[in-house]
Amino acid sequence: MPNDVQVRVTFQPNGRSVYVLPGTKILEAAARAGLTLDTPCGGQGTCGKCRVQFTAGACPPRDTETRTFTPEQIDQGWRLACQTCICHEAVVHVPESSLFASQHQILTEAQTDQAADVLPAIHKHYVELPDPTLASDAADLERLAEHLHSPLRTDLSLLRELPGLLREGGFKGTAVLGDHQLVDFELGDTSRECYGVAFDIGTTTLVGSLLDLTDGRELAITSRMNPQVSFGDDVLSRIQHASESPRRRDELRAVVLQAIGEMIEELCRSASVHRNRIYEVALAGNTTMEHLLCGLDVTQLGQVPFVPVFARGLLFPAREVGLPIADRGSVYVFPVIGGFVGGDTVAGILATRLAESDGPTLMVDIGTNGEIVLAHDKKLWAASTAAGPAFEGARISCGMRATHGAIEKVVSNGEDLHLSVIGNAAPVGICGSGLIDLVAELLRAGAMTPEGRLLPPDELPASVPPAIARRAVGQGDGNTEFVLSEQCGTVREARVTITQRDLREMQLATGAIRAGITLLLKQANLRTGDLQRVLIAGGFGSFIRRSNAQRIGLLPTDIHRDRIHYVGNASLNGARWALVSTPARLRGEDAARRTTHVELSQDMDFQMEFAEAMIFPEA
Amino acid sequence: MPNDVQVRVTFQPNGRSVYVLPGTKILEAAARAGLTLDTPCGGQGTCGKCRVQFTAGACPPRDTETRTFTPEQIDQGWRLACQTCICHEAVVHVPESSLFASQHQILTEAQTDQAADVLPAIHKHYVELPDPTLASDAADLERLAEHLHSPLRTDLSLLRELPGLLREGGFKGTAVLGDHQLVDFELGDTSRECYGVAFDIGTTTLVGSLLDLTDGRELAITSRMNPQVSFGDDVLSRIQHASESPRRRDELRAVVLQAIGEMIEELCRSASVHRNRIYEVALAGNTTMEHLLCGLDVTQLGQVPFVPVFARGLLFPAREVGLPIADRGSVYVFPVIGGFVGGDTVAGILATRLAESDGPTLMVDIGTNGEIVLAHDKKLWAASTAAGPAFEGARISCGMRATHGAIEKVVSNGEDLHLSVIGNAAPVGICGSGLIDLVAELLRAGAMTPEGRLLPPDELPASVPPAIARRAVGQGDGNTEFVLSEQCGTVREARVTITQRDLREMQLATGAIRAGITLLLKQANLRTGDLQRVLIAGGFGSFIRRSNAQRIGLLPTDIHRDRIHYVGNASLNGARWALVSTPARLRGEDAARRTTHVELSQDMDFQMEFAEAMIFPEA
Repeated sequence: MPNDVQVRVTFQPNGRSVYVLPGTKILEAAARAGLTLDTPCGGQGTCGKCRVQFTAGACPPRDTETRTFTPEQIDQGWRLACQTCICHEAVVHVPESSLFASQHQILTEAQTDQAADVLPAIHKHYVELPDPTLASDAADLERLAEHLHSPLRTDLSLLRELPGLLREGGFKGTAVLGDHQLVDFELGDTSRECYGVAFDIGTTTLVGSLLDLTDGRELAITSRMNPQVSFGDDVLSRIQHASESPRRRDELRAVVLQAIGEMIEELCRSASVHRNRIYEVALAGNTTMEHLLCGLDVTQLGQVPFVPVFARGLLFPAREVGLPIADRGSVYVFPVIGGFVGGDTVAGILATRLAESDGPTLMVDIGTNGEIVLAHDKKLWAASTAAGPAFEGARISCGMRATHGAIEKVVSNGEDLHLSVIGNAAPVGICGSGLIDLVAELLRAGAMTPEGRLLPPDELPASVPPAIARRAVGQGDGNTEFVLSEQCGTVREARVTITQRDLREMQLATGAIRAGITLLLKQANLRTGDLQRVLIAGGFGSFIRRSNAQRIGLLPTDIHRDRIHYVGNASLNGARWALVSTPARLRGEDAARRTTHVELSQDMDFQMEFAEAMIFPEA
Repeated sequence: MPNDVQVRVTFQPNGRSVYVLPGTKILEAAARAGLTLDTPCGGQGTCGKCRVQFTAGACPPRDTETRTFTPEQIDQGWRLACQTCICHEAVVHVPESSLFASQHQILTEAQTDQAADVLPAIHKHYVELPDPTLASDAADLERLAEHLHSPLRTDLSLLRELPGLLREGGFKGTAVLGDHQLVDFELGDTSRECYGVAFDIGTTTLVGSLLDLTDGRELAITSRMNPQVSFGDDVLSRIQHASESPRRRDELRAVVLQAIGEMIEELCRSASVHRNRIYEVALAGNTTMEHLLCGLDVTQLGQVPFVPVFARGLLFPAREVGLPIADRGSVYVFPVIGGFVGGDTVAGILATRLAESDGPTLMVDIGTNGEIVLAHDKKLWAASTAAGPAFEGARISCGMRATHGAIEKVVSNGEDLHLSVIGNAAPVGICGSGLIDLVAELLRAGAMTPEGRLLPPDELPASVPPAIARRAVGQGDGNTEFVLSEQCGTVREARVTITQRDLREMQLATGAIRAGITLLLKQANLRTGDLQRVLIAGGFGSFIRRSNAQRIGLLPTDIHRDRIHYVGNASLNGARWALVSTPARLRGEDAARRTTHVELSQDMDFQMEFAEAMIFPEA
């Protein structure tokens, strides 16, 4: 990854900030801030839907934009999010009309509820207690409890400090409370400073969001690679590693907790919040990720029947895992549904209100561990499927995450392939969305068979345009390599190609998800055509093109595009919600217990479906 | 203290064991085991009430006993507890008819209730869980919770071990449960091995009792000096020491916790119980003792208005204070009533069922910190009074605890004083009960004025018998010393005398308690004559003679002796009860909240009453 200095972009009216590399499109920066913009033209700059306005730090317009806006509008800072890049620190206003409809619908729904529903587990009260006298000589803790009209428990460490704190502050100060528990007592009125951090702990990517617990606002967001990838890029290899010895298990726990701790510190810096004012961290991850970060034994997750250690959500002191927050802060770990279907899925169900869906609704969370949930007739079924990390750019020879230099889009103009590179840079690799595009274009051009075989130059049909045909290069072993970009000599620019082996990985990933969808529908006696809505989740989900996802068979083809909605990082959204609302947290716990876990891996039908789904659909 | 090897005495039918020095009277050994025997003759061996039967380890009879029993009875092991000493390991059967009536009434009442009421916070269940299968793949913790029909929380450390434990035991084992909390999971069926320890944490003396939590039986008991005495012998000097710096506060905490830990280990050894099978410790002490052992700031207890840090009982993990019990065992600290009236008083109220008394009832706990509770008309008032450690033998020139070599009884036969020494040894000092006897006899003989002045030889009235008169020795400073025993040359035998200063200490101690009683009665508009019952508590209380306590004014004189009852170590009994019964614990918490704390030290009436109570009553 390049080491460039990142710049800050703040989005209005919600006030979220993210740090991005200069050259990042506003569209991508907005997505990182949890805002999915409407781009029906696929980001070509032709529909003019994704208009946003710089209120500070505007960058020069591109040709597509001068065609869309009047010179006055350009001067006022109006741009197309899919065209203009961030060059330096900026503030960008996003009109509600530019938000993607489904997000507008689902996330705003959630956010409106959130505002009405800000009832976090942790809250603060500034108190002014009467001084003790002979006539009023109640114990310190009781004096506070009486004032708050609530019995209070607390731990010995705070009880040891309380008399000194009360007297230093003249019996005035701020009580930090959580469920009849006195979490802390702070000098002065700190009641406005009450924060929490929500995390999506992915197999490949970690995303953290700093929230103001007094009003539910998000103050900062950050993401990074899960450092456990160096011990294996999917959950099974991590389970294998951790099962070898308690020391190795500790190693996996330590690296991810260190990263989480660093992300918390980073969030605190960017929002100027002191880490001692963070009282709770909510973590949503798949079963394996949650077990590993708690330091739990995962041996039994590596063997049939794949039994987790816990199912209900866990709440424990943050110091037990050493996170850099308030001394007596706590950690909430999302409940597990069963097997490999974990807390990230529960968070997704919570964020999308899937449990309250009207018609048959499918949620697909496309990640290294793919999760599929079907809601129908007040019932919920969930399954996980080992898609592997291909969609996140791993196990692909030139694969990479969706960062600077990644080919994120591949479009055919009928003559050749046109590549979009993140940061408008020279390409250094290809990310998941680019891979989906490429596979779709290869199928359309006829340069690849539905069985996934890249045709050698001499077998290419005449219909393949010459420029595309020239990209197919035969290898000595009979396989073919497809060249996206040739190296031109600089260090940062690489030769980006796709091999037959890469395409096999894509087939496996696509087939696993597709077969999972089919099997889950079978459980409810439904066919794909019955689905009212398909929700695509995952940070990644915001960037893939629906038509191409259907073309390669990742999503069912007999569903109209209008029924397919991107819901962004639903896991993170659910974690955010559970952090600011105890009722929402309880709804999540309830949904987890109500959801039937479907174990696919041992199902003979699944093996059949999987084999079938590996074949890409005919045009 | 002598370093002799102690021997074990086991009392039947209750099975309690204590360790005593050879030469200890059965009466004393029984008292240490919590059994107060009936001795209307004052332990002279004349009434024959305290009869007991050796079933093993009988010692030779004394003359008084051969007069009381037939030769057959002597052969069968019958003895008088007030006459025969323990010479080696023994088992002694105590008939119910030999128990002191009030104890019989009060303690047996409590014990009967206990038996019906054994509902400890901690309990165990042996479980045999079905093996997980693909069709039954619930998480480990849920599998256990479902089997126990109870949701279970647990901490991360156990969650980390649980999968291994379940699989090692073939999904069979013993769950240790406490309030929906999984405290531990043990291999095999250990459901019979469930123990707790109750402690009375006195300013001067620590007493611990090991209980079987499955049936409430006591398995062993032990006591030792509170090692904090080296930092000051009353609560105020300890508060002063602890307030000097956090390091000194830690020092006081560390010494008492180390002693408690050693006593737990000693109890485990004597009852052959593994410390990992002890899951809870209940601690009852006065406010200062409880604060110090929790490591709490006591600065504000040293200043008007004497505010404690906590009032409701505390429950925290034993590892927070480092006690040697099960890893996830817990500590319960009794609630505080207010000021210096702490958990030992609450425990006493619980043990004596004072809150449910019919007529006006007074409980007096005679210790370094004297506590007085009055129950009348469903109301409770409590006060503490700084009696000082004189009754426990401290601050007295030849004072000592009631151990080997202590003069524990002083009786006049009209000609001279007769001394009873613990262990029938040569006297090395005098303990509290001996001091009360001595003061009463000095008053009766006319060798001391009601104002507490020891008369010099030349002022002694003619009525003082010559042998007693010879014991009064004038000092150069005009004061008089009273000689109880002259040194005869051996190392173990000392010259035991009482000085004018010693008598002033006794006046202060007696006056403090007496004034407290008067003030508390005033609160309820009662006079001493209205009292239906006076309960004398304290391990010490079992040995003082009621008539002498009344003679010196420690107890009101206008109450018939029959209304005065010894209730033994009520604080320890209450701690025992709270350990084996959650309902009893809640009754204690309730009583603590219902009791009105009366702060005597700042009351001008108290100062007047105190000055008056310092004068010993006229004959």
